[in-house]
Amino acid sequence: MIKTNAYAALSATSALQPFELERRSPRSDDVLIEIAYCGICHSDIHTARGEWGPTLYPFVPGHEIVGRVLAVGKKVKRFKMGDLVGVGCFVDSCGKCPSCKSHEEQFCLDHTVFTYNSVELDGKTPTYGGYSTHITVRDKYVLKIKKGLPLERIAPLLCAGITTYSPLKRYGTKKGKKVGVIGLGGLGHMAVKIARAMGAEVTVFSTSAEKEPDAKKLGAKKFVLTTNPENFSSHRGKLDLIIDTVSANHDLSPYLGTLKIAGLHVLVGVPPKPSEVEAMDLIYGRKHLAGSLIGGIKETQEMLDFCARKKVFADIELISATGINEAYERTIKGQVKYRFVIDAKTFLP
Amino acid sequence: MIKTNAYAALSATSALQPFELERRSPRSDDVLIEIAYCGICHSDIHTARGEWGPTLYPFVPGHEIVGRVLAVGKKVKRFKMGDLVGVGCFVDSCGKCPSCKSHEEQFCLDHTVFTYNSVELDGKTPTYGGYSTHITVRDKYVLKIKKGLPLERIAPLLCAGITTYSPLKRYGTKKGKKVGVIGLGGLGHMAVKIARAMGAEVTVFSTSAEKEPDAKKLGAKKFVLTTNPENFSSHRGKLDLIIDTVSANHDLSPYLGTLKIAGLHVLVGVPPKPSEVEAMDLIYGRKHLAGSLIGGIKETQEMLDFCARKKVFADIELISATGINEAYERTIKGQVKYRFVIDAKTFLP
Repeated sequence: MIKTNAYAALSATSALQPFELERRSPRSDDVLIEIAYCGICHSDIHTARGEWGPTLYPFVPGHEIVGRVLAVGKKVKRFKMGDLVGVGCFVDSCGKCPSCKSHEEQFCLDHTVFTYNSVELDGKTPTYGGYSTHITVRDKYVLKIKKGLPLERIAPLLCAGITTYSPLKRYGTKKGKKVGVIGLGGLGHMAVKIARAMGAEVTVFSTSAEKEPDAKKLGAKKFVLTTNPENFSSHRGKLDLIIDTVSANHDLSPYLGTLKIAGLHVLVGVPPKPSEVEAMDLIYGRKHLAGSLIGGIKETQEMLDFCARKKVFADIELISATGINEAYERTIKGQVKYRFVIDAKTFLP
Repeated sequence: MIKTNAYAALSATSALQPFELERRSPRSDDVLIEIAYCGICHSDIHTARGEWGPTLYPFVPGHEIVGRVLAVGKKVKRFKMGDLVGVGCFVDSCGKCPSCKSHEEQFCLDHTVFTYNSVELDGKTPTYGGYSTHITVRDKYVLKIKKGLPLERIAPLLCAGITTYSPLKRYGTKKGKKVGVIGLGGLGHMAVKIARAMGAEVTVFSTSAEKEPDAKKLGAKKFVLTTNPENFSSHRGKLDLIIDTVSANHDLSPYLGTLKIAGLHVLVGVPPKPSEVEAMDLIYGRKHLAGSLIGGIKETQEMLDFCARKKVFADIELISATGINEAYERTIKGQVKYRFVIDAKTFLP
């Protein structure tokens, strides 16, 4: 077993604090990773606070993990010591069901083992996330990362990157297409960068006027301040696709109105209450409202390779482990441009 | 001008009554049609009663029209006297916009001229529907109907048929696919027949236990009585596509649960209030909620040809003009199997 320093929440109301855990020694198909950086995702906070159903405490968050291979099991051929690697939102699945066979392990019909707040395939061993110095993961669920790139800015791609890349890619984003992005936070800023890198024209929708210069700098051509309903009028029927990253409740109707015929509005944020949808907003113009959840391993690798090729990385603020609790408060208030990333060396005592 | 006997509502609260109007003499690209039959669509009732926004009175309903060509304009090549023809929900459009050019005239970006409660492209002449003896329509908006088929049972295909055919076809219904149909009324019974004719396995969802034998007779393999939530449990994750024909408010969540990963729930009915949609019901399994509105002329012709080939016709109750008001009451109560069709001869005094 590998002694590992981490940060954990011990209950829904306690701050995160230093914690020790043990990672398994690599089995024949495992990769032992020394974590270099781990991003702070809004999901970490929801789960730490027990806001998304039951949380298993002690709870170690973190599913935007990058690091270096320390050791590999004897059957592992894809990785060797020193390789740069990433781990995203899940670390195992059955591998046999139709979802796994079609490379959508996040929808495993048997058991997706999520990186935290989950149990291993044995049905009992809890999983602990990347706010820690080491992690052991089955080789098939480990991603390759190219050398010579800003590693700390790659960490957020493992969740924010794939969450936005997957629907952008699936629904045909390319030159000539017009993409709307609702919300300019961790997910939103990645959606803007990736949509631009794919060649689309991007319109950012935000409740904050002060985000306009940033939106433009990130690559958006247009900016709609959504607090005034009249601002939507000149955008009616213009967009092919909307990536909706907002996890506060918001009226979907004006956004559906900005879609072209057959356009698609994809939810990747989870508002606390259900959204009201007018049937006529979908029927007239035969529009689509959909959801999307991260992406499979194959697609995540494709995204990492795409981002490496296009030099698309997250804009981040690098912090130490002792700054996690303050970072949580600032993330909740939207006071980060655009992702906190923890330097994993600082988990050491 | 052609003197035409019809039935009209003179106000939102008056019963339909005999009415006289004039149809234009055929222009060079017009077809003058002697109407044989006209279906009663629930939309007729909503519009007659002013329930769907402003209605122009006097209002002559009817957009499920079949008849025979009486005369054609001198440039008309596709039709000749005596041909069997149909007219659906619209009778003209700009013909030049991207929607028209891609054969979706129902979404004309300039002006779709609907068959009733609309104005012609001149912006002022009101349109009157098919509860009448004659209608004059531009040749491009007239459908061909094959001879030797039960004409009165074809009338409802012009709205109920194309409304269900279009999403079934678009979203890949064929052998090996599993299709759910919510509601077994005018639209629902067509959805079952067409999905079966395309080769799919059909599951009917209904609030009425007594509809089960009928659902099976129409071709459904499975029947789910939706009044008991437990009845959904054995159907989770089974369906590729749902056609939702219900125009009363209903909880979408259990239906979204019956979809496979990437499955699609298509609304063709318009409930009076917005539907509540849980983001997680779409995100987990990356499901889609969409709408669909009738179909373009090209697709409507394709549907008529498909139904002729497959011998798919509506189940109807043939009535006289004097029975329209009673038929309206029975349609609202769902007491028709499954479509009232008016014999247009009975509009004559």
